[in-house]
Amino acid sequence: VDGRRLSERLAALARAGARPGGGVCRLALTDADREGRDRVVAWMRELDLRMTVDGIGNVVAVLPGREDLPPVMTGSHLDTVADGGRYDGSLGVLAGLEVVETLVRAGVRPLRPIAVASFTNEEGVRFTPDMLGSLVFCGGMDLEQALEQRDAAGTTVGDELERIGYRGSAPIPSVRPCAFVELHVEQGPVLEQRGATIGAVTGVAGISWTEIELVGQANHAGTTPMCGRRDPACGAAGIVTFVRRLALEIGGSHLGTVGRLVLRPNLVNVVPGSAELTVDLRNGDEAALGEAERRLEAHVEELARTDGLRCDMRRVVRLQPVAFDEEMVDLVEQSAESLAHSAARLTSGAGHDAQMMARVCPTTMIFVPSRGGVSHSPEEHTAPEHLQAGANVLLRTILALAERRHR
Amino acid sequence: VDGRRLSERLAALARAGARPGGGVCRLALTDADREGRDRVVAWMRELDLRMTVDGIGNVVAVLPGREDLPPVMTGSHLDTVADGGRYDGSLGVLAGLEVVETLVRAGVRPLRPIAVASFTNEEGVRFTPDMLGSLVFCGGMDLEQALEQRDAAGTTVGDELERIGYRGSAPIPSVRPCAFVELHVEQGPVLEQRGATIGAVTGVAGISWTEIELVGQANHAGTTPMCGRRDPACGAAGIVTFVRRLALEIGGSHLGTVGRLVLRPNLVNVVPGSAELTVDLRNGDEAALGEAERRLEAHVEELARTDGLRCDMRRVVRLQPVAFDEEMVDLVEQSAESLAHSAARLTSGAGHDAQMMARVCPTTMIFVPSRGGVSHSPEEHTAPEHLQAGANVLLRTILALAERRHR
Repeated sequence: VDGRRLSERLAALARAGARPGGGVCRLALTDADREGRDRVVAWMRELDLRMTVDGIGNVVAVLPGREDLPPVMTGSHLDTVADGGRYDGSLGVLAGLEVVETLVRAGVRPLRPIAVASFTNEEGVRFTPDMLGSLVFCGGMDLEQALEQRDAAGTTVGDELERIGYRGSAPIPSVRPCAFVELHVEQGPVLEQRGATIGAVTGVAGISWTEIELVGQANHAGTTPMCGRRDPACGAAGIVTFVRRLALEIGGSHLGTVGRLVLRPNLVNVVPGSAELTVDLRNGDEAALGEAERRLEAHVEELARTDGLRCDMRRVVRLQPVAFDEEMVDLVEQSAESLAHSAARLTSGAGHDAQMMARVCPTTMIFVPSRGGVSHSPEEHTAPEHLQAGANVLLRTILALAERRHR
Repeated sequence: VDGRRLSERLAALARAGARPGGGVCRLALTDADREGRDRVVAWMRELDLRMTVDGIGNVVAVLPGREDLPPVMTGSHLDTVADGGRYDGSLGVLAGLEVVETLVRAGVRPLRPIAVASFTNEEGVRFTPDMLGSLVFCGGMDLEQALEQRDAAGTTVGDELERIGYRGSAPIPSVRPCAFVELHVEQGPVLEQRGATIGAVTGVAGISWTEIELVGQANHAGTTPMCGRRDPACGAAGIVTFVRRLALEIGGSHLGTVGRLVLRPNLVNVVPGSAELTVDLRNGDEAALGEAERRLEAHVEELARTDGLRCDMRRVVRLQPVAFDEEMVDLVEQSAESLAHSAARLTSGAGHDAQMMARVCPTTMIFVPSRGGVSHSPEEHTAPEHLQAGANVLLRTILALAERRHR
């Protein structure tokens, strides 16, 4: 592949939704998302690929094969978090494009078609659930329901797709792939710590998101004796502390995060009337994840009782751990070895479109190192040589799959 | 006094900035504040009082006395918190007006003039510091500096005063009172618990507001191992818990509150990069308040060190405890007794304009019960008979002061 072209396109794409501090804010289905999509679609058009847009706005570009067999598919997403970097998601889409462009320019036409997908709303920041586009693509959610999902302002996915011109008419799924492989930045420190260039991803950790609302009694901070208070900020603080302690107790790859916490009315001299917070739990083992959820719930209920708070818990996302296809993982390792890149096996702690695709075809992912393990941040960085290495491993893996008549 | 007229005016005033749930949002120098001021000024005009507006927007209406001596002053403020009730502040202004109207209608003209003040920005929600109008009135802050104070959107006090038409030209102070007495709802549960109708307020607790910013490392909640995290949400939670524990340890009338807490970027799947929170500490004893501040600072520094966070602490408000004039407190008690109302002495945990006025003349306050001790909330309520009792005690107290040639 042409590593320079890939890096230049990543930089060009990062201008869509660029923020002053160097970060990118390209929330799903915003004007910035449209700008990013338009840029990528223009590059796809230059290669004269067969393009489709489906009802949830997934864009799929297909390089025809020598025969009309089910394609090998790759891809990722173009949306970002509110202050993200330029690699998360974008790399997977643009590396797929780079693989196809490399083949086109080399005059190589594989047996099977190659499909490059850009899935809608992977991050789940603006609309829940995350991985919405790939979920619908795989039949995990009805299109009608997906189009009705609303952001915090009450705007629906359907209306925003119309508005930005990406509510397409292609059938769902627009293609039925024989295999799926996604290149992505690791977003964690494991590859860097192990000194490996390529991660062969064996699966994705299960994810549990819980929204908790604690309701107490808003009151004057200067006149309400401590003993008469029902202060949801104290309850929320207890939960934040518990989530960390629980994660350290469970150990292994278990993760627990309170990323969002809102007090109301959120004023210096008012005991808050309510607190709203989210708990993100992740574990590669289904039983351990379920146990963590039960302990969290018990703790929240006990704490609400002690502090005289009303509490409401809602599971807003629940994804079981996903195991990727063994043979596909082997193939990624072999591709890395054939290119003399060091490879390590690891589990993804983050959710990815690939875990949806794993429902319908043999799937795996390729990781490249994230500097300092940093992601979802303007400081997100992957070295250009690692980007190139990842795209080359993707090319080898796709080519190997695309030349197989039978799996 | 006419209790019905007082209650009707409180209800009419509450329509300025009325919120759907029954609360009032009349933040200082907003359109709602203008509407409330205009209403009160119209009532003052009906009584043909001598009105002045000074450079910080304090409105003072004066009923002339038989002689041109320094006036007895009363009053409070018309601004509210973001979701407040209809009594906090408004009662003190409208009861002062009611006292004057009662005297005018009865044809009583006291020896000394009576001044009724409405002070600007007492709550300190929109502009810091709180009690800004009375602070400037008492010479505690230069007018120029006060006019440059900015709200969260960067708008200055001066520009907003211009905009709503309350940047007056009266000298500061517009009057030099011989005494000041403010009627206010207690905003706490003490009078209700003691079964008393009138509170004779002996002083105001010292107040300390600290803004704390904790900066860690924003990162992906699914890929960042627990041990590598620098999570400011955990630090903030530790502070919330500590502030409560400290208050319970210190005991007595000490209060500690974290009312405001903001995480950034505040997203479910991102380890926060920073947390900003406020700590409100109150104590009637200066030494105890200072000790609480020192312990808070030491705890925050230790916690930041342990969690690898950068921390920045800023004292944004610091008011020493204020002791009111003994003779004035006695007079309030005598006035209550002469009207056969039960009275109790207590210290105010909340800040009030009266504590500023105490710098320049003998001062005290009269409290009436708050149902359930609730304030700064739409549920704030004081029974009509308590409103009337408070206004009658205010009338007796003012009359007694206004007939004294010498203090």
